[in-house]
Amino acid sequence: MAKNIAPVYYGDYLKLDTLLSAQQPHSTRYGAEAHDEMLFIIVHQVYELWFKQVLHELRAIQREFHQPKLDDKGLYLVAHRLRRVLTIQDLMNDQVAVIETMTPQEFLEFRDYLIPASGFQSIQFKELEIMLGLHRDKRVAFDQSSFFNRLNDQDRSYLEQLEQQPSLFDLVDKWLARMPFMNIESFSFWRLYQSAVDKALDEDEALIRGNNSDAAQLATELAGIQSNRDNFHALFDADAYQQLQQDGRVRLSQQAMLAALFITQYREEPAFNLAWQVITGLTEMDEKLTIWRYKHAMMVQRMLGTKIGTGGSSGHDYLRRTTEQNRVFKDFFSMATYLLPKTALPQLPEQVQRLLGFYHRD
Amino acid sequence: MAKNIAPVYYGDYLKLDTLLSAQQPHSTRYGAEAHDEMLFIIVHQVYELWFKQVLHELRAIQREFHQPKLDDKGLYLVAHRLRRVLTIQDLMNDQVAVIETMTPQEFLEFRDYLIPASGFQSIQFKELEIMLGLHRDKRVAFDQSSFFNRLNDQDRSYLEQLEQQPSLFDLVDKWLARMPFMNIESFSFWRLYQSAVDKALDEDEALIRGNNSDAAQLATELAGIQSNRDNFHALFDADAYQQLQQDGRVRLSQQAMLAALFITQYREEPAFNLAWQVITGLTEMDEKLTIWRYKHAMMVQRMLGTKIGTGGSSGHDYLRRTTEQNRVFKDFFSMATYLLPKTALPQLPEQVQRLLGFYHRD
Amino acid sequence: MAKNIAPVYYGDYLKLDTLLSAQQPHSTRYGAEAHDEMLFIIVHQVYELWFKQVLHELRAIQREFHQPKLDDKGLYLVAHRLRRVLTIQDLMNDQVAVIETMTPQEFLEFRDYLIPASGFQSIQFKELEIMLGLHRDKRVAFDQSSFFNRLNDQDRSYLEQLEQQPSLFDLVDKWLARMPFMNIESFSFWRLYQSAVDKALDEDEALIRGNNSDAAQLATELAGIQSNRDNFHALFDADAYQQLQQDGRVRLSQQAMLAALFITQYREEPAFNLAWQVITGLTEMDEKLTIWRYKHAMMVQRMLGTKIGTGGSSGHDYLRRTTEQNRVFKDFFSMATYLLPKTALPQLPEQVQRLLGFYHRD
Amino acid sequence: MAKNIAPVYYGDYLKLDTLLSAQQPHSTRYGAEAHDEMLFIIVHQVYELWFKQVLHELRAIQREFHQPKLDDKGLYLVAHRLRRVLTIQDLMNDQVAVIETMTPQEFLEFRDYLIPASGFQSIQFKELEIMLGLHRDKRVAFDQSSFFNRLNDQDRSYLEQLEQQPSLFDLVDKWLARMPFMNIESFSFWRLYQSAVDKALDEDEALIRGNNSDAAQLATELAGIQSNRDNFHALFDADAYQQLQQDGRVRLSQQAMLAALFITQYREEPAFNLAWQVITGLTEMDEKLTIWRYKHAMMVQRMLGTKIGTGGSSGHDYLRRTTEQNRVFKDFFSMATYLLPKTALPQLPEQVQRLLGFYHRD
Repeated sequence: MAKNIAPVYYGDYLKLDTLLSAQQPHSTRYGAEAHDEMLFIIVHQVYELWFKQVLHELRAIQREFHQPKLDDKGLYLVAHRLRRVLTIQDLMNDQVAVIETMTPQEFLEFRDYLIPASGFQSIQFKELEIMLGLHRDKRVAFDQSSFFNRLNDQDRSYLEQLEQQPSLFDLVDKWLARMPFMNIESFSFWRLYQSAVDKALDEDEALIRGNNSDAAQLATELAGIQSNRDNFHALFDADAYQQLQQDGRVRLSQQAMLAALFITQYREEPAFNLAWQVITGLTEMDEKLTIWRYKHAMMVQRMLGTKIGTGGSSGHDYLRRTTEQNRVFKDFFSMATYLLPKTALPQLPEQVQRLLGFYHRD
Repeated sequence: MAKNIAPVYYGDYLKLDTLLSAQQPHSTRYGAEAHDEMLFIIVHQVYELWFKQVLHELRAIQREFHQPKLDDKGLYLVAHRLRRVLTIQDLMNDQVAVIETMTPQEFLEFRDYLIPASGFQSIQFKELEIMLGLHRDKRVAFDQSSFFNRLNDQDRSYLEQLEQQPSLFDLVDKWLARMPFMNIESFSFWRLYQSAVDKALDEDEALIRGNNSDAAQLATELAGIQSNRDNFHALFDADAYQQLQQDGRVRLSQQAMLAALFITQYREEPAFNLAWQVITGLTEMDEKLTIWRYKHAMMVQRMLGTKIGTGGSSGHDYLRRTTEQNRVFKDFFSMATYLLPKTALPQLPEQVQRLLGFYHRD
Repeated sequence: MAKNIAPVYYGDYLKLDTLLSAQQPHSTRYGAEAHDEMLFIIVHQVYELWFKQVLHELRAIQREFHQPKLDDKGLYLVAHRLRRVLTIQDLMNDQVAVIETMTPQEFLEFRDYLIPASGFQSIQFKELEIMLGLHRDKRVAFDQSSFFNRLNDQDRSYLEQLEQQPSLFDLVDKWLARMPFMNIESFSFWRLYQSAVDKALDEDEALIRGNNSDAAQLATELAGIQSNRDNFHALFDADAYQQLQQDGRVRLSQQAMLAALFITQYREEPAFNLAWQVITGLTEMDEKLTIWRYKHAMMVQRMLGTKIGTGGSSGHDYLRRTTEQNRVFKDFFSMATYLLPKTALPQLPEQVQRLLGFYHRD
Repeated sequence: MAKNIAPVYYGDYLKLDTLLSAQQPHSTRYGAEAHDEMLFIIVHQVYELWFKQVLHELRAIQREFHQPKLDDKGLYLVAHRLRRVLTIQDLMNDQVAVIETMTPQEFLEFRDYLIPASGFQSIQFKELEIMLGLHRDKRVAFDQSSFFNRLNDQDRSYLEQLEQQPSLFDLVDKWLARMPFMNIESFSFWRLYQSAVDKALDEDEALIRGNNSDAAQLATELAGIQSNRDNFHALFDADAYQQLQQDGRVRLSQQAMLAALFITQYREEPAFNLAWQVITGLTEMDEKLTIWRYKHAMMVQRMLGTKIGTGGSSGHDYLRRTTEQNRVFKDFFSMATYLLPKTALPQLPEQVQRLLGFYHRD
């Protein structure tokens, strides 16, 4: 293999000359260098390098989902690449501690030289959001109006073209919706499943009535149960489900939602193990992104208080508002609402049993 | 020193017989042991042990603040103990990952046996909240009504008696309010400081006007600046400040707020270094508690969806609502709003300079 | 399900009365309480609780390996439980930071009261080591002589009886050795594999000769290559392999070693995915235990310097010496020595291909 | 302040065009891109960015130590910058988990294209080591001969010139040696201190004799005590101390060692608080560097087994050998050997008490 390969020098391979000359503090243009501007630059550059790596993995994951048939070997790759993304996200979340070693005053020494640059102009981060499936109409109001503000033309048109591509959410939805075991005559299984969930919700209702002496609190809790009931029944009723989607309470298609519920319920079955790794990986990616936004918002507040950021908006409030709402795979996150303990599960459809059977010899 | 000391055996010293027999899964009472109930018990017991340690440190910290005169040696101890609390909190936050290795179905195998027990019944956690200064009237609505619900009489009266003690917040407020450099004739310093802050806010306003083409967005941002202006001027006006307190926008007393601002502004002065370590330690304690609540809420959602918890309420929503609001030292957290870069600082009052001077020989 | 279940109170369920009264500082027996003894006790008690949980998981894992036939459902459980163990280990490793918040002097305030208690008397930790497969004759010299020293009779005989049970290492070895694809006529595959590895080693040798101008260094490196060659060829020669075992250079049986190599080489094959998760989980368990010992040794040195510990021996040196040597699954750890890039792999035996084929429909 | 400042765009400020085009996988030169080469490049580039930041901080720290008089304000800065370095080191240590998401086979897909590049060619890492004070003659043997091997001329002469500069170790040693309280007539204090340490060592010896039934073990432990005695007495005897230095058992100068011991013993004194933060920060920097080397060595072994690296040497062994030995501030690390509990401390010299007194008013 190693034939005719030119010898390589570490610094050349990593292009260190280029890389290490890309830190140009602006404070030196207007006076003495502010010591901490270097940290500010490097912290953001490291984030951008990790974003590049995450995008590299997500593109490879999308390629797998674009395959006409995504077999276990493909799913293994998706799960493997997702694990890497999660590991990088852990690091990015912990990295907030590094920028927090800068005091607000140290930041103020060079903040004015950065105006009106803003983290909202990170194209790779926006690309990541778009690629995951965070389209304009799913964003919080402020974000909708401003997502493309303050970008130069080239960046804006690049992102607008990206929004035309199918997102990871779309691809995952399609993959789930076409799961073979969902196309079979499984009516009786789901009917039994519904009864079992109803029974569990009845027990929860009894529990609530027994535990809440306060009338207002009781009413709230009962409304919660009723909402769970309605949502659950809607899973099996195309019209009701469509209403849930229109109200923004679910995002997955009905078929995909049922498939995800089924896989989550039977995750320890070898046949579903990889699919579940993928579902759980996507859920955790969302969760870690949420924690990143949250920590980031707290860091901005410590750094600026309620002062506005260099881009001319109070980043803290924005970040806090987006923390919860900008989640893409929220449906997976709440899947546990309808899960049953194994002892309460109905018998599996025969066709599915046969499918699972293949995996049980060794 | 080591005279007449009875020899000690590891297991006896740590009372391992007692400790390791305190895990009694309830699933065994009604059938086979649910494998994961052991994890559930141990995870909660470890939290309770850490709570005990944190309370041990906070009590020691309170003792220092009760000293008639809290000198640098005392402050060193406070900062030292706070650092330990923060280190334990980091661990507690990471510990959420351990309970997340349990799947929702594994939890459902024994969840019904725990009814109506609930984490809301952790007396040590409530004690921690009370000791910090999270009194009933500062809590979110639901929490107010339910804080003492579901406790047995002994626990309830123990906590009610605790609410009568001065909290850490109260003690910190008093310590700050009596800072000697705040009692001096410092009128001219603060007047200059006000002008400098006003100038900075003016610049921010100009920046906002330049950067926001959208009228609605501009209005929101300008309102934010005006609010900052009002709050800042209220710091120097007893009546206006009282109004801020009544509106729940600040909690510290006026004197304490000014002292905290002064210390934060001059934190690198050796004379203020320990005081600032204390302020920043308290801020981080709040922040880490917030992250704990947040991660906890996400874990509950993954485990139960929107299902109710064993205590008969939807813990997730509650936890999420308390995440932001139940902060005690929020005033420290937003202190950066009024900080100035060093270059914009007015001359320090002479008396303060003299005080700082003591620290500059070595 | 939830019929006739007695209502549960949080504090009773967790036996908090018992748990929270098990911290009895000895310093109070001889004078004023040393503030930091509480931390010392609680840190060790938390470790013991985690040890209990880890043992709980390892026992469940051993039960799976004792099954006459360990199918994918069983392997899933093993991998799932191992992941939990790893998550707990991460927490235990980070917990060292908590004890490091105690200064050496703070420890000296109560150290003399603990004599001659020692962490070497933790029965659960020794049980963990024995259960993994760290038998007396595999330990470093000092450890061999002292493993059972300083224990009371009951503890000693408990551990000696445990040493008679098959360890996790033994069970894993047997499971690997009976892998079906190893019993087939696979002679030609392994012969081709050998040629491919030989070729790779030849290329490494050429590389070494090209890169080392220093004669002594070159000799060392070439000896390393030769050793790799010898070890690799021994994998296919029963007598040579036995010699490696006797020299302590490998521990797995020959059949198990080949199976592990095969699985590691083809880990992305769905048929091997769970088996590989198990192998990699065991490797990481060892690695994290190693890091725990290492961090622990450094903490002891910071606390005591080269002073002796409360048990009367210099714990730091001991811990450091055991860090490397007390590894159980070292063979997995070095498996990469004989791995080939996919492009260099020989064709798989037809029987194995057929087996893998089952997993490729979906 | 914000006058005439050119508006800034995020991507321009961070030079993202340059930064994000510096990842050029070599696998594409010889065939299809190996998916994981991007990760390999980015992981190393991120390390290099952090190295640049750490060097930036260390240079600023050195500037403080070069000041004719390092007052508390300067020490505050040193401690502040060290804390940042430690936070970055934590991140770098956790980053090993990211590269570990690459399997050995995935690495083999492009490893041959990197020959003979090697991490040993990282000039910034070598600069970091030199700047700390890891000079050639302190390195392990292999390292001595090869430190400058495989570098191009420019890099080699850059590093050789760096070795002529005073290292951080040298500067810290000088700073400690000139501590004012060490130049005073403190003879009686140290004589009393010696008696107290002798007494403590006597008690340890008695303890050892009581706890070791095994003769060989007893002899080893007693030798350890004797060595501690000899080392301790050497602290007060210029000739004996010089011998310790020549034997490589201590590195600090005698005066610096005594100052460090004094500060560590009285660290909670406000006058010493910052100095102790500096000492402990340097110790932790060493410790975290050690953990980085250790984790790195384990990662290399998992990736390559005992195979040689791309640079043509078995990196794992080298890294492991250097883990322990390449520590710079080892003397601080073992300082606890001679610490006394507060109750055993002799009275402080009056002159020192007066110095400390300044810090006790507030």
